[in-house]
Amino acid sequence: MVSAEASLRELSIQLPQAPAPFGAYVEAVQTGDLLFLSGMLPVENQKPKFVGRIGKELDGAAGREAAHIAALNALAVAKEYLGSLDKVTRVVRLGVYIATSGDFFDQPRIADGASELLKEVLGEDKMPVRLVIGVASLPMGMPIELELILETKL
Amino acid sequence: MVSAEASLRELSIQLPQAPAPFGAYVEAVQTGDLLFLSGMLPVENQKPKFVGRIGKELDGAAGREAAHIAALNALAVAKEYLGSLDKVTRVVRLGVYIATSGDFFDQPRIADGASELLKEVLGEDKMPVRLVIGVASLPMGMPIELELILETKL
Amino acid sequence: MVSAEASLRELSIQLPQAPAPFGAYVEAVQTGDLLFLSGMLPVENQKPKFVGRIGKELDGAAGREAAHIAALNALAVAKEYLGSLDKVTRVVRLGVYIATSGDFFDQPRIADGASELLKEVLGEDKMPVRLVIGVASLPMGMPIELELILETKL
Repeated sequence: MVSAEASLRELSIQLPQAPAPFGAYVEAVQTGDLLFLSGMLPVENQKPKFVGRIGKELDGAAGREAAHIAALNALAVAKEYLGSLDKVTRVVRLGVYIATSGDFFDQPRIADGASELLKEVLGEDKMPVRLVIGVASLPMGMPIELELILETKL
Repeated sequence: MVSAEASLRELSIQLPQAPAPFGAYVEAVQTGDLLFLSGMLPVENQKPKFVGRIGKELDGAAGREAAHIAALNALAVAKEYLGSLDKVTRVVRLGVYIATSGDFFDQPRIADGASELLKEVLGEDKMPVRLVIGVASLPMGMPIELELILETKL
Repeated sequence: MVSAEASLRELSIQLPQAPAPFGAYVEAVQTGDLLFLSGMLPVENQKPKFVGRIGKELDGAAGREAAHIAALNALAVAKEYLGSLDKVTRVVRLGVYIATSGDFFDQPRIADGASELLKEVLGEDKMPVRLVIGVASLPMGMPIELELILETKL
């Protein structure tokens, strides 16, 4: 059983400050054993780190990096809420929404930028189901948004 | 602790008749403490109240009003299912799907048209996580669709 | 109470082999009574059976058939995970993501291609809430993706 907190130390991953809401909602809601997170964007210090659509203004490498940053933000929110990522017993669902023109079809490779971070930190046995879709646009023109449901022990 | 039913009276909000399904599905499913609602559209009497994309055929004000109407429909479905909105202990998740051209990026402000109604009626302590994305098109050309998961006490 | 396994036999439906993941995720995650499935695509033997957008490169009949195939894949994954579809007590949620140009508005009729199979096999009393949206693009250019949450007795 992988300890996520030990993984963060071994991988020298410094989680960013958890992002704050851009509107009338919260970043995390716990109900029973499930922790729902808001849509996580590739922001740093509340500012978009990437703007553009994958396959149009941005290439696949930028998309994977944006997915990685959004996943770091998700972990930061979960850690802020739970106190420790070792309380995450499973990532239940990962939704990946990628802004693309209608002719970009390699969304799974972009989404892996998020999935691979989750696997490194939380361990392969906690991997989720995944939904990946290409969307018309995302808040502030960002290229990717992630949505996670986590199973936790409290 | 805000009483949603008292809020409705104080705000003189008359909930519309709950919309009926447009296909082979139902409007609400309860599983454990969670009440899932179908995608809620800005319909009145089963007819689209708005048609068009935000930032193209419709402006932001129309989008916020459409979000408000869809949120009223969500509350109407929840009330019809539960008997009383006072059984809602939390809005767990609000998904907001907005039909846009690829160059409209102010989705959060549109989504607030729904979030603000939920806050007024249910109280700030019941606010959900939120996912907001811009999509290519929605059923019957409507500009917005909402998806809610509610936590309930039965 | 309909037996899903008896329905499959009566309808002479042979479930396909369950699809395998296209990346770093799994096809099914159980948490409590809920079984989450990954986004299900219209693949046969891991290859796209349909490529194109509904209302553009593909017509509505192709869309309904693609929805039917994706729903068969969802049932195959659920059966592989649970051993028997008779352990499904409810389909809680069906998300239907349809690749369209911005001017196709008959998404519900396409989605019914999936809903009708679920109803035939699982019975009308197990029907879910439904979200239907038109998206810009889907993995490998496929026209439809389904997302199911099932309630189960273990």
